[in-house]
This record gives sequence, C-alpha cells and structure tokens, in this order.
Amino acid sequence: MKRVCIVGCGAIGSLYAAHLARVAEVHVFVRREAQARALNEQGLRVSGKDAHNFTARVQASASARAMPEFDLGIVATKATQTEDAFAPVGHLFDRGAVISAQNGLGSEEILAEHTRGWVVRATTFMSGTRHSDTHVQYELDTPTWMGPFEPRGTPFAVVQQAADLVVAAGLKAEALEDARPAQWSKLIFNASVNSVSALTELPHSPHFADETEFSSLGNLLHALIEEGKAVARASGIQLHEDPWEMNKLGAQTNHPPSMLYDVRRRLPTEVDFLSGAIARQAERAGVAAPLHAAMYRLIKAKEASWQFADENRAVEAAQSQP
Amino acid sequence: MKRVCIVGCGAIGSLYAAHLARVAEVHVFVRREAQARALNEQGLRVSGKDAHNFTARVQASASARAMPEFDLGIVATKATQTEDAFAPVGHLFDRGAVISAQNGLGSEEILAEHTRGWVVRATTFMSGTRHSDTHVQYELDTPTWMGPFEPRGTPFAVVQQAADLVVAAGLKAEALEDARPAQWSKLIFNASVNSVSALTELPHSPHFADETEFSSLGNLLHALIEEGKAVARASGIQLHEDPWEMNKLGAQTNHPPSMLYDVRRRLPTEVDFLSGAIARQAERAGVAAPLHAAMYRLIKAKEASWQFADENRAVEAAQSQP
Repeated sequence: MKRVCIVGCGAIGSLYAAHLARVAEVHVFVRREAQARALNEQGLRVSGKDAHNFTARVQASASARAMPEFDLGIVATKATQTEDAFAPVGHLFDRGAVISAQNGLGSEEILAEHTRGWVVRATTFMSGTRHSDTHVQYELDTPTWMGPFEPRGTPFAVVQQAADLVVAAGLKAEALEDARPAQWSKLIFNASVNSVSALTELPHSPHFADETEFSSLGNLLHALIEEGKAVARASGIQLHEDPWEMNKLGAQTNHPPSMLYDVRRRLPTEVDFLSGAIARQAERAGVAAPLHAAMYRLIKAKEASWQFADENRAVEAAQSQP
Repeated sequence: MKRVCIVGCGAIGSLYAAHLARVAEVHVFVRREAQARALNEQGLRVSGKDAHNFTARVQASASARAMPEFDLGIVATKATQTEDAFAPVGHLFDRGAVISAQNGLGSEEILAEHTRGWVVRATTFMSGTRHSDTHVQYELDTPTWMGPFEPRGTPFAVVQQAADLVVAAGLKAEALEDARPAQWSKLIFNASVNSVSALTELPHSPHFADETEFSSLGNLLHALIEEGKAVARASGIQLHEDPWEMNKLGAQTNHPPSMLYDVRRRLPTEVDFLSGAIARQAERAGVAAPLHAAMYRLIKAKEASWQFADENRAVEAAQSQP
C-alpha cells in the first residue's frame, strides 16, 4: 500500500493525510480548488503533543482527472457528502481498498456502489480541530477500528495491511474480524447525543446524564440508547462498549456535537446515517424504534423549516390562540 | 352571576371580558399597571364580524386589594402563569365559581388549591388576535365547552348558569355533564402539534399531515396522537373529536402554534400542561407514553439551553469531531 488517497480533508481527513504522508505517497481529493492550491503550496501542518508536530507534503486536487490509481483510500467527508465526493474517484480504487472513516451507518454501501475495490468498515475515535485548510490540531489520541465490509467479502489480510499502515504513520488503529460491535457502539452513542443536541441546542452537557426528575433529559438519552441496543441485538450485533457509559463521560465535556454545529448553520445534518439508520435497521430487523424514528422525523422537518421561511415569518406577526 | 372577574387579559381573556361587559359588571385582573390604566381610560375594543364590533367598559386592576367578591371568574392566563395570577385573588371566588379557559391539563387543580368556590373545567376553541392592551380582533366564532371539575363536585346547575351567561354575552358556549372528552381531544391535538412545532420551528404546515415517506413528519404526529388516545382510553375518557382529523385540517393553515411563538422569544412554554401532562397521566394510568415523554423532556431541555449560553457559545468556535 504505497499510494494513498484521502477523500475529504476536514479535521479527520487532515489527520490521516498528514500522518500517512510520512510512510506513503499521499494524495488528497477535496471539493474546493482554493483548498487544493493552499495544500500544494503550504503543505499540511499538524500541531499537538509529542510526535504530532510537523508539516507534511501532500498532492492535493479538486479534480479526479489527473489522479493516478490508488492502493488505499480513506473517505473522511461528512456522511451526507459521500456520494458526491466518492463517485468521481471510485474507479481509482478498483484494484485497491477503501476505508469509510465516517460517522454513522450506511456510507460503506455508498462506497461499494462506486468501486470494485475492497471496502473496509471503520470507526474512528480520533479527534482534531481544523484551524485552516492547511492546519489541523490533533486532540484525542484514540484508535480507528477497522473490519471487513461483509457484503463485499473483504479479506481480513487487507484490513490488517491498512491498519498496519495507519499505525506505521503514528496513529492508533486496530484490525478486527468484525468491526460492527465498535461501529454500533459509536452509532448508538452518536445518534442519541447528536439528535438531542440538535433539537434542544444544548451541547453535550450534564443534562444528558441527569435522571433525577421525571422531566430530566437523561431519561430520554437512556431510552434512546436502550432502544438502539435492542436494534443491535435484533440485528445479531453484540456491542463493544456501553453507549450509556460513553454518554455519561461525554456529558461532562460540554462538547458541541457536529449536528448542533450543522443546525446552527442550517447545513444538512447526518441524521440519515444516525437516528435514521437505526430506525430503518429496526424496520428490517422487525423491532420497534419509535424514539429514533421520532428524532429522525423531527430533524428532517427542522431541515425542511429552513426552506419554509415565508410561512415561518407569520409567527412574527401578532399572535392568536391556540 | 352579576359580577364577573376575568383573570388575564390576553386575546381570549379580552374576548370574554368585552362580551360579558354587555350583560354583567366586569372586572379585569391583569399583571401590568399600564395595561390596567389603559383599559380603565379607553375601554376594551372588539373588532370582527357582525355583532362583534364594539367598545366595552371594564374595571381593570393590577392589584387584588381593592377588588370586590365575585360570582364568577374566568382564568385566561397562560397555563404557566395560573399560580402567580390566581393566588392573590382566589379568595374573592370563595362564594362563587371559577372557570379555567386555559390550554392543556392541570390548571383546574391549581385553581382549586386557591379558592373554596366551585371550579369549572372548560375548553375553548375561540380565537382572536390581540392588537394592543385595549383592542382584540375576534376570529373564530367557535364554542367554549364547560363541565364540572370532578374533584370539587361542582353542580351541573352552576356550569349551566355560567354557560348561559357567556351565551347571553354573544359568545358560543355549551354546558356538558362531562367536559373531559372535549378537553382531551383538544389536549392531544394541542400537545402533539405544539411540541413538534416548537422543536422543528415549522408552523402548523402540510408537513404535519404528510405520511408519504418513512421520514415524513406526519408519521410522528400520527404516533403522538395514537399514544395520546391510548392514555385517554386508559384513563376512562372517550374523546369528543378525533385529534388526527383536527390535525389534518389545521395542517392546511400554516398557523404558528403558541409554543413556537414562545420558543422564538425564549419564553417558558406550556409543555408541563400539554405533553408533560399526558406523560404524567400515562404514568398514573399505568400505560406507556414514551413519545410524549420524549417531547416533554426535549422542550424542558430546550428551555434550559437558554440559561446555558456560555457553554453554547463554544459551538461558535472551531469545530472538532465527532
């Protein structure tokens, strides 16, 4: 795996690109021409602890035209952008492998539609802050878990090779025979916390773990997580970690989840890949997931409200009952 | 019933006060001194169709001190203000009757705590637009349904007298042996529509009745309404109207529900008396109401987010994963 392409260069994509450039030829496929130019001219700077302070050379492009074939790809766009970002370059991985390092469930299926290469299911707990197109700060030194995407029959050896490369680059990674327990643990956690944050506009605050009163928000988080666990169980997936414990820890951080960021900027959210994915999987598995379905429908309607401004303005006029 | 007091002079309170002033001595108890002064100086103007164009004389006060005893009261504040508004004047109704004409469930209990008089359960479908402290526009010429508040054992004759007075004043009213079927029909409708509107920031738009896709919002409304009906059933209450039919009609209006107005202005909502009341009644009746409980907890948390501004501001800073 000598030639690697990172698709999407946000915080997570930037961390992979810069680290992997130390052990492979790294190309970066981005949406904006200006970002490609800046990366080619200035390189990609990582700041953080210890060995994570350096500037890497990468070859960036906003067009698939001039790009070569790759041994490995890592797709790190928002899940909502997978289709648009990967369709133009998918054929470049036909003789290689491609990893989805995205939030939620369902991105692997989109990758598989656009490449004949091996598809790898991954869940990353890395975190970083993107300061500019060419500067990312490495925060949590936590691993990426990888496993085969079952419908494609990806050999474990391919997953192991990819994990080895990421480890050689100085990041944490682990190859697993089955990555779904890790993916579903994060999915249930992420779906529950992101939906509630997007609707309440609270960051991941202590309210999320508070169960002292009947009205307390922690009761809802608990119910969402239990419902997600029941869907995993009905789908034959044993969880790697308890999402409720993840929620209790996270609720001490006041961290703003990505969907809160999206809602504040009126950007399309990843809800189709989070609560929406849980609700749809519940239907397939023949179990009920009324709460995740409710969150899904509320957030889709919230997105619709941004196109519904005229009628909304009526609320500013004098108010009548009820 | 010769001397009447209206507590709270918003759109609904103003409509009762002005009309009743044509057949009784009407006092108005309001919160703001300026509103009392304006009403005493200018009277209360009603505009609308036919017989609903006139200006009435009322005696307004922001202090209970100088007020006489009353034969009848109508409390028309927001449900969240019942306690504060009624506690100072409750004793003035000890030898009379008092009607709650408020949204949701639970206001009657608060009235009963503060008066020894008869308590009347009422549900109004009237609607008006308040143009100023002294001018209200009459819109929907729809009735107020009244019945005994059961725990107080209010005689039906008292309810009938009150309804007769309202009818004599030129408004529609009906005395019922049991007002709960009407109250619960409106409660389930109101709770479902208001919660969804507050969280999505959509007015009561066609989305609320759309069930074409898995993600469609109408599916959630339907589920909330079915859940509400199950709680009514478990509580021994037969509904007067089907709230789903009420929702289908309302979804053609793009009307902004009152809770959307509150959320936009960061005012306390009536959720404790709507989805919160359904969820608590479900607990008492031994049935599940996970969706109304979810809406209740989300809206309480949204209210809490307004006091949580510092942490919220973090979202404006650079964004990190996940």
